[in-house]
Amino acid sequence: MPELRKDLITEGWVIIATERAKRPHEFAQQPVEPDAGTCPFCPGNESQTPPELWAVRARGGANQSGWKVRVIPNKFPALRIEGEMNREAEGIYDRMNGIGAHELIIDTPEHNLALEEQPAADIALALTACKERMLDLQRDDRFRYILAFKNVGREAGASLRHSHYQMIATPVTPHRVKAKLTGARDYFARKERSVFQDILRHEQRDGRRVVFENAGFLVFCPFASRFPFELCVLPKRQSADYHSVAPDELLQLAEALKATLGKLSRGLNKPQYNLIWQTAPSRAGHRRSGYWDTIDQDFRWHIEILPRLTRTAGFEWGTGFYINPMPPEDSAAFLRGVAV
Amino acid sequence: MPELRKDLITEGWVIIATERAKRPHEFAQQPVEPDAGTCPFCPGNESQTPPELWAVRARGGANQSGWKVRVIPNKFPALRIEGEMNREAEGIYDRMNGIGAHELIIDTPEHNLALEEQPAADIALALTACKERMLDLQRDDRFRYILAFKNVGREAGASLRHSHYQMIATPVTPHRVKAKLTGARDYFARKERSVFQDILRHEQRDGRRVVFENAGFLVFCPFASRFPFELCVLPKRQSADYHSVAPDELLQLAEALKATLGKLSRGLNKPQYNLIWQTAPSRAGHRRSGYWDTIDQDFRWHIEILPRLTRTAGFEWGTGFYINPMPPEDSAAFLRGVAV
Repeated sequence: MPELRKDLITEGWVIIATERAKRPHEFAQQPVEPDAGTCPFCPGNESQTPPELWAVRARGGANQSGWKVRVIPNKFPALRIEGEMNREAEGIYDRMNGIGAHELIIDTPEHNLALEEQPAADIALALTACKERMLDLQRDDRFRYILAFKNVGREAGASLRHSHYQMIATPVTPHRVKAKLTGARDYFARKERSVFQDILRHEQRDGRRVVFENAGFLVFCPFASRFPFELCVLPKRQSADYHSVAPDELLQLAEALKATLGKLSRGLNKPQYNLIWQTAPSRAGHRRSGYWDTIDQDFRWHIEILPRLTRTAGFEWGTGFYINPMPPEDSAAFLRGVAV
Repeated sequence: MPELRKDLITEGWVIIATERAKRPHEFAQQPVEPDAGTCPFCPGNESQTPPELWAVRARGGANQSGWKVRVIPNKFPALRIEGEMNREAEGIYDRMNGIGAHELIIDTPEHNLALEEQPAADIALALTACKERMLDLQRDDRFRYILAFKNVGREAGASLRHSHYQMIATPVTPHRVKAKLTGARDYFARKERSVFQDILRHEQRDGRRVVFENAGFLVFCPFASRFPFELCVLPKRQSADYHSVAPDELLQLAEALKATLGKLSRGLNKPQYNLIWQTAPSRAGHRRSGYWDTIDQDFRWHIEILPRLTRTAGFEWGTGFYINPMPPEDSAAFLRGVAV
């Protein structure tokens, strides 16, 4: 059973994921990546994965080939769905069982097709899968937060090449999400305006950091970008929850991601990256904390794109602040200039 | 001039380090690492670096060979020492000039000698250099925090192989340090005991996470370790400031680092790692904030050792909490079993 442990000083949580344990010498080895024939995410190999939770198919039955998008539980989950939380003390420390969910959304049957190479309508299908799975996981009141993300490339943490998203439901609200919720709430309390709306308007007017815009979304390099070519995909319509995204917005989001990731891929020779959803915590999980009074006005869901071009070193780990060698105005100007 | 920018939502600071700027295509390239003949940190090549700030020498004059430890300003600093802070608004955002200091402590004249291969007395000399430079930088009341750290290996952010420490003085107190200061202060307010002393006693009694102990220091894998083989080097004597470390403690610390890094190196085949000091903020920089009333009782300086064996992926970036596949009890048992 995986375990959640709380740092006694910073109060940050850590998942001790025993199901993914390795022997000490294995940490030094690079795992061998399967090719199309043996990849468990490829059509024809459905029996190598746990049974599917959700799918869109052109033909065939459940757990057969013929699917366009397929959602499965992770065979080696960071958190487990079965069991009790069992919050308890261990000496002076706090721990609980690693209860949660860990799902994989395989967004294309084609082994070598990158997200930006897919038709926008197919990208929108996978974005719909993310929405549907979030809605379903939010019904479980043990879960406080549901994080969707995509790791592309080994440096970005992907262990399989075949394109996929991941979704992890956690029984605690993560630090970084809390910081954004608190920041947005305090800004709203001070100014009676949404910080996200202020950023949207400011970036549209200023223009120097904008990379892409359509009817539903603005894509820009944030003013305080932590990384070269860091991007934020911000919806124009106020909504705290990704799961409330409308069908026309899903297609606009698919277009925004296709254009932006296409520019990154062409301009920087297919960099490795992380794509990260930031949305409101699960309503079912906790009604008592202080984020909820104005959350539908002050917080807005968004997606972060973090290219992995620099290394995080002692300074970043020691301080939690970042050294970025590329001004976001320069990153955005470069990406605007890449035709897709 | 580098620039500090504040995130409008999370209030975290980012350094936009224009002096280290690259062209977009350069991010994809691996820089070529110099060997002993051309390395700017090797004896005989002193003229390739800025003039030294501090040194211990067996012979020779300033900026000549014959040194044992040599401190120089970084030729490509993340922050610059000259100039005014110039805190100002930029539209809705906050920025200031990137004022600070960025120094390098070259801890051995030998190009290929790892820290754990040096005699303890030589390690103690470099630890003395860290103390002396911290004391000197703390006289500048523009600086709020001084971070000492060591990146070993390219994955850990080192661009040169030749062993060195770095020191960066920042004009703001970093997020991660604030979280520890606040956590330690709140714990003390609740219990009238230091959280560091509680951890020290608990780990000594429990024993499962202890890796090394001598008269001055306990080295253990923290209960909520974020990474496999993460280690904390905790002094037994209460002191908030690394710069107050006594000469006999410096030698005990050198022994603790030599033994612990020796175990890591032998047991895990020379893993890449970061070594990070965590000490109290600079007293000169700010007397007004809320950390100071009980800091000498509640906070204790310590050193974190973070081996870089796993990749930080979308989940960690999106949540700020960590998935660790190796229980710290297993990490510690393994390291205790490695003879040095």
